[in-house]
Amino acid sequence: MTNVILRKRKNRRIENGHPWIYDNEILKIEGEVKPGDIVNVLNHARSFIGRGYINPNSKIRIRLLTREDEEIDRNFFRRRITRAWEYRKRFYDTSSCRVIFGEADFLPGLIVDKFGDYLVIQTLALGIDQYKEMIVELLDEIIQPKGIYERNDVPVRELEGLPQKKGFLKGEFDTVVEIEENGIRMLVDLAEGQKTGYFLDQKENRAAIEPLVRDALVLDCFCHTGAFTLHALHYGAREVTAVDISEQAIDFVKKNVALNGYEDRVKYEVANAFDLLREYADRGEKFDVVILDPPAFCKSRSAIEGAKRGYKEINLRGMKIVKPGGFLVTASCSHYMYPEIFTEVILDAAADAGKQLRLVEYRYQSKDHPILMSYRESLYLKFFIYQVF
Amino acid sequence: MTNVILRKRKNRRIENGHPWIYDNEILKIEGEVKPGDIVNVLNHARSFIGRGYINPNSKIRIRLLTREDEEIDRNFFRRRITRAWEYRKRFYDTSSCRVIFGEADFLPGLIVDKFGDYLVIQTLALGIDQYKEMIVELLDEIIQPKGIYERNDVPVRELEGLPQKKGFLKGEFDTVVEIEENGIRMLVDLAEGQKTGYFLDQKENRAAIEPLVRDALVLDCFCHTGAFTLHALHYGAREVTAVDISEQAIDFVKKNVALNGYEDRVKYEVANAFDLLREYADRGEKFDVVILDPPAFCKSRSAIEGAKRGYKEINLRGMKIVKPGGFLVTASCSHYMYPEIFTEVILDAAADAGKQLRLVEYRYQSKDHPILMSYRESLYLKFFIYQVF
Repeated sequence: MTNVILRKRKNRRIENGHPWIYDNEILKIEGEVKPGDIVNVLNHARSFIGRGYINPNSKIRIRLLTREDEEIDRNFFRRRITRAWEYRKRFYDTSSCRVIFGEADFLPGLIVDKFGDYLVIQTLALGIDQYKEMIVELLDEIIQPKGIYERNDVPVRELEGLPQKKGFLKGEFDTVVEIEENGIRMLVDLAEGQKTGYFLDQKENRAAIEPLVRDALVLDCFCHTGAFTLHALHYGAREVTAVDISEQAIDFVKKNVALNGYEDRVKYEVANAFDLLREYADRGEKFDVVILDPPAFCKSRSAIEGAKRGYKEINLRGMKIVKPGGFLVTASCSHYMYPEIFTEVILDAAADAGKQLRLVEYRYQSKDHPILMSYRESLYLKFFIYQVF
Repeated sequence: MTNVILRKRKNRRIENGHPWIYDNEILKIEGEVKPGDIVNVLNHARSFIGRGYINPNSKIRIRLLTREDEEIDRNFFRRRITRAWEYRKRFYDTSSCRVIFGEADFLPGLIVDKFGDYLVIQTLALGIDQYKEMIVELLDEIIQPKGIYERNDVPVRELEGLPQKKGFLKGEFDTVVEIEENGIRMLVDLAEGQKTGYFLDQKENRAAIEPLVRDALVLDCFCHTGAFTLHALHYGAREVTAVDISEQAIDFVKKNVALNGYEDRVKYEVANAFDLLREYADRGEKFDVVILDPPAFCKSRSAIEGAKRGYKEINLRGMKIVKPGGFLVTASCSHYMYPEIFTEVILDAAADAGKQLRLVEYRYQSKDHPILMSYRESLYLKFFIYQVF
C-alpha cells in the first residue's frame, strides 16, 4: 500500500482525530496513486496515523477511514455500518433517523437517512463513491429496508470530479413517503425534498417545544415543510401562523396539516419573515411563542459578519413580539455560527430590544447526528429556547 | 424613596439585566438608608433602572428586585413566587424541585427547594431576610407544604451581617424525608444534608444516563449520596461501583440502595477517586460507563488554573478506563469553569489519552434552576456525555 508522508505541523489536528488531510499538508507520496486508492498516512517521523482514501483531484486530498492497521474491505464497512446502526437503536426512535453521518460515524463522505421503510443515500466523495454498491448491499443486509434511493444531486460532488445524479438503488417505489415524527404524520418527498428529502436533525428539538405551546398563539417563521407548525398544533397550540417565502413550501405544509386533521387552527403567510416580523411589531401583534428556524445564513467562515447581522435582526424582531413571559425558539444551522457566537448575537439583540432572556433549552442537533469533537464541522445545529421578559 | 445614582460606566451590565450593584459603582445616595431599605436605582443621567434592597455593609451594595416602577409589597412577592411556581409546573415534575432560584427568578438571595411535601428555604442576603416571614406565609398559601425548614447555616450570610441558623419555620417533622426522583426512592436529610439537603440540579441529567447503562459495568466516582449510582441500578446496570472518600456518604448510599432493593448489584469503595482511577488504569480494569460528578474544584475566578488541572486529571484517567465505544459521563458544578473552558479541558485530556470523543449529551443544570442570561452566575452546572473511542 502506498505511504503518504505528512509535513511537520504545529498543531496536532490530524493526530487528534480530524479525518481530513489537505493537499498542502502532504510532504510526499511514495508511489503511484489512482483516485480513490486506499493509502497509509504517516507523520513526518513516519509514525502510522491512519488509513484512508485519496483523491489527487480534490483539495481534501485524503479522508481517513481508520486509525487502526486494518483492511478496508466488506467486513470493515459491515462493522462500521453495524456500529452506527447499533448507536441509533440505543438512543433513538429509528422509525426515521439519520443512520450514517459521514465523518462523525467514521465513514467520511457517506450519508444515509432512513424514512420509514426506505433509505436515502449520498456518497459525497470519490473515495466512498466507489464502494457505493457494496454499501448498498450491506445496508440491505443490516437494516432490510423496502427500498433505497440515491440523492447524489449535490454540487459538492463536482469538487470530487463526480457527476450529479439521483435514482433508485433498490426497488422502485413512490418517493413521497409518509413518516411519523414524535407521533405526527408527515409526508416526505425523497426525490424532490431538500437534501435527502427532509431535515431529520431537529426531531428531538421539535419535541422540546411541547411544554411551551399548549393553548398558545404561535408564530413559525421559515416554516419550510411545516415540521414545527405541525408539532405546535400536535401539542395543543390555540393557533399557529406558518410563514414561508415559498408558496410551494406552504402548499406542502397544507398537505401535512390536512394529513393530521389540524386545518382549523392554522393560518398561512407567504411572506419574507424579516418584513413580516417588522409588520407585526409595528401593528403591536404579540405571540406566546415565536419560532425562528431559518436556512443557513452563512456557509463559509468569511460570511460570518453578514450572517451575524441577519441572525441579530430576526431575533431582535422576534423577541419584540413575544408576550412578557412567553418564549423565543431560535435555531441556526450554520456551522460557522459557533454556539458562543450565536449566543452572543442573541444577547446583543436582547440588549437592543431591552429584553431579559432566561434559557430554557440549550440543544444541538438530534443524537442521530452525533458530534465528533475532533471534527468540529459535525457540530452545526444550535437550538435554544428562551423565556422573554 | 431614596434614590441611588450610579457612576457612568463603560459596560451596560446593570442596564442589560444583571441584578447586582457593587459599592464602587455608586456615585451618590440621595438621603439616609438603613440596611435592607428599598431604594430606586438611577443611572448617571438619572434614568430609572430599577428598584432593589440596599445593604451598606455588603460589597454587593444593592440587589435589584424589579425593573418596573412597582411597589415591593406582599403582592409583589406573591406575583414573583406564583410566576416561579407556574414555571416549574409547566416544565417539570414538581414532586421535588427547586421552587425559587434567587436572582434567576428575580428574587435575589432567596432559595426555596421542595422535597416531597416539605419546603426548605434560604435567605442569603439581609434585604430578602427581612421578608422571610412574609415569604413563608406566601409559600404556605401558594404551595401548601406540610412543613417548612430553614437552612440558613451558610457562611455567605455573614458577608451580609446575618447570623447562621437553621430550624423549623412551619410545623415540626422528621427532617429525613423520602422523595422520588425519576421513579427512584431516595432519603434526603433536610437538616444535615449538603446545602438544602440534596442536589436537585442533576435530576434531568441523571435521567439522561438511561440509554447508557443497561447491562453495563458502571463506575460512579464522587458518588456522594448515591444519586447516579441509584439511577444506573434503576436503569438496569449489571454492576455499579460507587466511590466516595467519605465513609459517611457511602453509608448513606447503602441506605438508599437498600430502600430500592438493589443490594446485589453494587460495590462500594471508600477511596480518593483520583488514586482509585489510576489504580484501575494500572490494573487494566475497564468499565462500560464512567461517571465523574466531583464537587466544585474552583469557587473563584483565581482558582481556575488549578481547577483545570484537576478536571483534566480525572477526565483523562476516567476516559482511559472506558471500554472502546463506552461512555464518559462528566460534570462540573464550578461556575467559573465556563462551558467552553470545561470542553477545552476535556478535549485536552482526550488528546493526551489518544482518545476520540463523540458528544452524546450537552446539558446544563435542570430546568428548575433556570439560567438568566444577563446574570451568568446562574449558569454553573455542565453535564456532558461522550462516547469514547
